[in-house]
Amino acid sequence: MSSFTTGPGLPFHVYDTTLRDGAQQEGMNLSVADKLAIAPLLDELGVGFIEGGWPGAIPKDTEFFARAAKELTLRNAVLAAFGATRKAGAEAWQDPQVRALLDSEAPVVTLVAKSDLRHAERALRTTGAENLAMITDTVAFLAREGRRVVIDAEHFFDGYRDDPAYSLSAVLAAFEAGAEVVALCDTNGGMLPDWVGQIVTEVRAAVGPDAILGIHAHNDSGCAVANSLAAVDAGCTHVQGTVNGYGERTGNADLLAVVANLELKGGRQLLATDGPEAGGLREMTRIAHAISEITNIAPFARQPYVGASAFAHKAGIHASAIKVDPDLYQHIDPVAVGNDMRMLISDMAGRATIELKGRELGFDLAGQAEVLTRVTHRVKEAEANGYTFDAADASFELLLVEELEGARPGYFQVESWRAIVERAGSRGTPATAEATVKIRAGGERIVSTGEGNGPVNALDQALRQALVRAYPELEAFQLIDFKVRILDAMHGTDAVTRVLIETTDGQTSWSTVGVGPNVIEASWEALTDSAIWGLRHHGVAPR
Amino acid sequence: MSSFTTGPGLPFHVYDTTLRDGAQQEGMNLSVADKLAIAPLLDELGVGFIEGGWPGAIPKDTEFFARAAKELTLRNAVLAAFGATRKAGAEAWQDPQVRALLDSEAPVVTLVAKSDLRHAERALRTTGAENLAMITDTVAFLAREGRRVVIDAEHFFDGYRDDPAYSLSAVLAAFEAGAEVVALCDTNGGMLPDWVGQIVTEVRAAVGPDAILGIHAHNDSGCAVANSLAAVDAGCTHVQGTVNGYGERTGNADLLAVVANLELKGGRQLLATDGPEAGGLREMTRIAHAISEITNIAPFARQPYVGASAFAHKAGIHASAIKVDPDLYQHIDPVAVGNDMRMLISDMAGRATIELKGRELGFDLAGQAEVLTRVTHRVKEAEANGYTFDAADASFELLLVEELEGARPGYFQVESWRAIVERAGSRGTPATAEATVKIRAGGERIVSTGEGNGPVNALDQALRQALVRAYPELEAFQLIDFKVRILDAMHGTDAVTRVLIETTDGQTSWSTVGVGPNVIEASWEALTDSAIWGLRHHGVAPR
Repeated sequence: MSSFTTGPGLPFHVYDTTLRDGAQQEGMNLSVADKLAIAPLLDELGVGFIEGGWPGAIPKDTEFFARAAKELTLRNAVLAAFGATRKAGAEAWQDPQVRALLDSEAPVVTLVAKSDLRHAERALRTTGAENLAMITDTVAFLAREGRRVVIDAEHFFDGYRDDPAYSLSAVLAAFEAGAEVVALCDTNGGMLPDWVGQIVTEVRAAVGPDAILGIHAHNDSGCAVANSLAAVDAGCTHVQGTVNGYGERTGNADLLAVVANLELKGGRQLLATDGPEAGGLREMTRIAHAISEITNIAPFARQPYVGASAFAHKAGIHASAIKVDPDLYQHIDPVAVGNDMRMLISDMAGRATIELKGRELGFDLAGQAEVLTRVTHRVKEAEANGYTFDAADASFELLLVEELEGARPGYFQVESWRAIVERAGSRGTPATAEATVKIRAGGERIVSTGEGNGPVNALDQALRQALVRAYPELEAFQLIDFKVRILDAMHGTDAVTRVLIETTDGQTSWSTVGVGPNVIEASWEALTDSAIWGLRHHGVAPR
Repeated sequence: MSSFTTGPGLPFHVYDTTLRDGAQQEGMNLSVADKLAIAPLLDELGVGFIEGGWPGAIPKDTEFFARAAKELTLRNAVLAAFGATRKAGAEAWQDPQVRALLDSEAPVVTLVAKSDLRHAERALRTTGAENLAMITDTVAFLAREGRRVVIDAEHFFDGYRDDPAYSLSAVLAAFEAGAEVVALCDTNGGMLPDWVGQIVTEVRAAVGPDAILGIHAHNDSGCAVANSLAAVDAGCTHVQGTVNGYGERTGNADLLAVVANLELKGGRQLLATDGPEAGGLREMTRIAHAISEITNIAPFARQPYVGASAFAHKAGIHASAIKVDPDLYQHIDPVAVGNDMRMLISDMAGRATIELKGRELGFDLAGQAEVLTRVTHRVKEAEANGYTFDAADASFELLLVEELEGARPGYFQVESWRAIVERAGSRGTPATAEATVKIRAGGERIVSTGEGNGPVNALDQALRQALVRAYPELEAFQLIDFKVRILDAMHGTDAVTRVLIETTDGQTSWSTVGVGPNVIEASWEALTDSAIWGLRHHGVAPR
């Protein structure tokens, strides 16, 4: 990474395959609408290429390209259609799979091609020579039709280690037939950086300085990011990867970490949107999280650069020093990737952490030693009972307010509540949910019954209806996420349920936590905390 | 990684810090009992060192060392107590923090020491010279008291890049005072493999071939595993890390991936338990998952080597080739790390995947083209509605049985069910949960009411009581995990809830899925599927 030796003047491609290879991930299931929502976010990030899927082979990918042509306006990226070289023994122009790539109207076509002789023989059941002809014919045909062609040289590194001459001949055949890029793929993901660096150096020597070589890495050895950097260092100027490292097995190279490393540590400027002032990199965290909302894959908190924990500090030993000099404790300024430094509240937190966290939430606790001691004690006790304030700032703030002001804001008093779910009939008959709450607010006793598609929803409706007369501000609040986790089930004690609820008022969103043996009871705690925090945040006084 | 040049005859240390640095992770909260349960698993894996915590500074760590001395019998590992060099301007033998390390009776003491001049001056507020004296004094004192001393040279790489002479002087001071190991720490985690390799090479040249250098990496650049490998390649023979890569921010180096790479790709033998036949590596997946049960941090499915998805194949293009030759599609044999190859069912699955998955579950579908078509179609449709069979083999199997036999096994017919949760009183009063089911089984109509600590638990009790008369086998089934996920909430449509339930009979465990707008209804679906699968698996006929 000291040098980044690349051919003089070669363009650098940031090539995203979230919508194609990323979608192979276990548990991921992208609809056409999902893909149409993700592509503009990738474009906003500033990648140069968006691989949208395999038209012809997967019906919804055919539909994606058809709708993308009409509905999407991309400013930075071009779309790439993924497919395969022609069938053995057939003509490229007659192969329906190849024709579907043309029909997609994507300006770039990326073809997976065998470059490991064993795969050509054993998986395709053809000869090495016919496999080379398949590459030559298909590339030449698509190039003649005006497409920019990228070759994904599948299993390249494994193949090269077994039979370098054959693997190289596949690369050379692709370039000779008119491919713009040959991406060397570590399809099984088992490479290590030294191996990648060595092999790319040899390939670069063989293809000359003007050919565009790419890298496509998977993370099976835990080295996908480092392998991508090693390949760039050895002369690749086209990097493939996926947002959040999505992909089959252990995933593809996390394109965000690769780009952030190359930009922030390698001094390059790769994203189309990066200017001297701001750009894609600074939007990276927001875009990564927005995409995970669409894929519905829970974000990995420890993800480099963009993870919720990536700049979160817990250790007491560090908290006091961070007050002195935050730069000493962070590898980069989190603002560079749109992330934030956070202080975490936990039983390991000393009073310094609580003080810093208080400051983050707008409370000056510097002189209040007694409050700090009480809050620190209560946090430790609550965490021992299953609460977590790491992910529930709003509940922590209410605890702090309670200690500062002697009590939570008294917006309402609860007399009782009840939730009923029932189904009369067999599988297929819908169930009904109903909840009743009895509370006092604004000087009145209110009995309110709500219905919902589930018990928490019904309780939320009932509580909202009961409170909205006294507090019309509540109308704008909306429950947007609800997470449940069973704690301690393996310790043989009674399981405890932890519920995290996220609420928004359209501008801000806030998270609250509830804990108890009963999921509905824990939800009720988080729901009421959410209402209290929201009203307090809006400056509403108890009525 | 081609060479692994190390000093001749230096021992290799696999040093685990899950219980100390790993416990800094956001959301992790280990009790003394948790630590006492994890340590034997690390020992079973075959690590050489287990860093247990910071006695003296954290009360529960003091207790851990006291109880470990009495309760643990370690066969492969020794315990290390973590602490810091003495305070500035004090005597090591008088420093209570240093004395607590002695009192822990751990045979190894690991001291964090500043090796970045800026940290000594700005965070410790002392001079470079006094910091060196603190290292010398504390190491010499502990070595005289018979302890093996490891120095964690904090912020070493950042410091070395800023002022190599000072950082090196800290390393040399430690060795001269009697430290057995100096571990070079990338505390902020921002290094890249080339940088680490270059710096370790320079340090190795300065300390000579006989000193034991270690590496302690964090994953902020996404390169912790590769950085650890680069350090070993440049001469480190002591590797620190955590199981599952736990740790603050983006986590520590994942010790499992580092060791698996060094053993399986570097040809070393590092774990005490590894023999020619079997050993720790082959238990790695089980141990990693057992530890995640105790830490209660959901395992990361894409984790290299041990992740649930690490050897899971979804792509239709691959499924047909895997039938021909599985070795072509895996970087290692998953058995080497105790993991399994799995075929995933999804809407991308072609009939080849369904056929392979069927075979995995014991169904020969080879000749049954029509069944394959129907099952493939139903899987696609169900996944479009929010189901996921990736994580619910048992529900997939029931779907398969339905298509093969025309219907699910008719163990019982449901007339109706109802769940009620209520609380009379304010915060602190416990809520009650009660459920009633009306079903037919064994020729009878049964009305059964169950109580529980929550509605799903109450429904589970009621269903179990209703069925157990006809099916006493149910007595042994136990619900062990319950996961809830809200789908599609961001699409503006009605949210759909997906519930995954895991059940065990003591030997096997199985997972079922339920989907619906109502969490209780989805839970009911998963609960009934679970009972049906369990009875069928036990060979019970409908009564």
